Amino acid sequence: MKQIDVKQKVLNRHQEVAQQLCRRFDSAAVLAINIMGSPGCGKTALLEIAASRLADSCRTVVLEGDLQTDNDAQRVCAAGLRAYQINTDSACHLDALMVERSLKLNKINLDDLDLLVIENVGNLVCPAGFDLGEHCRIVMSSLPEGFDKPAKYPRMFYKADCVLLNKIDLLGVLDFDKDAFWRFVEQVAPKAARFEISCKTGTGTDAWLDWLRQRKRSPSETRD
Amino acid sequence: MKQIDVKQKVLNRHQEVAQQLCRRFDSAAVLAINIMGSPGCGKTALLEIAASRLADSCRTVVLEGDLQTDNDAQRVCAAGLRAYQINTDSACHLDALMVERSLKLNKINLDDLDLLVIENVGNLVCPAGFDLGEHCRIVMSSLPEGFDKPAKYPRMFYKADCVLLNKIDLLGVLDFDKDAFWRFVEQVAPKAARFEISCKTGTGTDAWLDWLRQRKRSPSETRD
Repeated sequence: MKQIDVKQKVLNRHQEVAQQLCRRFDSAAVLAINIMGSPGCGKTALLEIAASRLADSCRTVVLEGDLQTDNDAQRVCAAGLRAYQINTDSACHLDALMVERSLKLNKINLDDLDLLVIENVGNLVCPAGFDLGEHCRIVMSSLPEGFDKPAKYPRMFYKADCVLLNKIDLLGVLDFDKDAFWRFVEQVAPKAARFEISCKTGTGTDAWLDWLRQRKRSPSETRD
Repeated sequence: MKQIDVKQKVLNRHQEVAQQLCRRFDSAAVLAINIMGSPGCGKTALLEIAASRLADSCRTVVLEGDLQTDNDAQRVCAAGLRAYQINTDSACHLDALMVERSLKLNKINLDDLDLLVIENVGNLVCPAGFDLGEHCRIVMSSLPEGFDKPAKYPRMFYKADCVLLNKIDLLGVLDFDKDAFWRFVEQVAPKAARFEISCKTGTGTDAWLDWLRQRKRSPSETRD
């Protein structure tokens, strides 16, 4: 019986489009970042709190991935950034074809951009397996999720260029072993930049934006 | 060109095994429940806090689904329940074949059981699509995730027999619109039982266990 590797073929097509996207980003000198994390870890809240500084410093477009609703695109737009929703319906992650389609559909001219922020579907597993052509992978975790997430979901963390630990303002309220969290990150993603932030109080978000600005200077060098 | 619907074939196999499992559960008068929710929403903590009452009232086995580590099985065992870990490696959900294999591998005799608790991989998307032969689907959400999750992840909620809103002790600390959360649940899963709980303080967990005991009386009637 002849075996047909359907999964491999589909993945190859995604990989091909991801590479095309990356070349387009490079050619237009756009830094593309892919923000991933569990539902409710604070991905959208980060964009809301960073919106005014981003809007002042660079031409930014946000693509918001969710199964349903355009809540997140609305929130980010209300904060002052240009944002578009991608509804995946039942799909548990964004893929390069969805990003390509959204850029076309929304007439996003990369030459008019400096930064493309892609907020992935809230999911600590599946988005890790899909390259969107991005230069940076930002993985966000948050205190209420517990300190062992990098150990339990290593595939999400091990390719991270940056790990954000959000809701740090809850440190006195929740029982969270911060040192153990970072030890797990060290084991899985030793090269990742690390920031403790609060999207509620703003703690640490400026430091993260400074780090992002550094990446902006040489996007093509940031990609493995 | 002849099209081969590989996905459908694989799903049919899973569905077949799920139905076999359900018949085995029914025949042994075992109530099987599938607990799903985001990473860190408190699924394991619920089992820890419910452990002593469960251990006193019925013969219980817990299957713990995670990509990596046996942290959760260890926690549940330490709380006094018999628990086994299923590591999915990269898979984002449990499936019926994994459950069947774990029952066999761990020599779990259903005739010696009253309750089988399956804690799924922390993921608010994918586990919803995989029937494990369970009688009840318990979907847990928690305050830090935000109130709009039932609207954004409707596929997870709409087949729920029970929705648990955990970390209710954080109501004064976090900005969470509880009424809006339940309105979204009402829209997506109007028939689901609803409990507000705290696995930290114990609030609401007894009421949930009482509800579960009611289901135990007639497991075969609880399945759609």
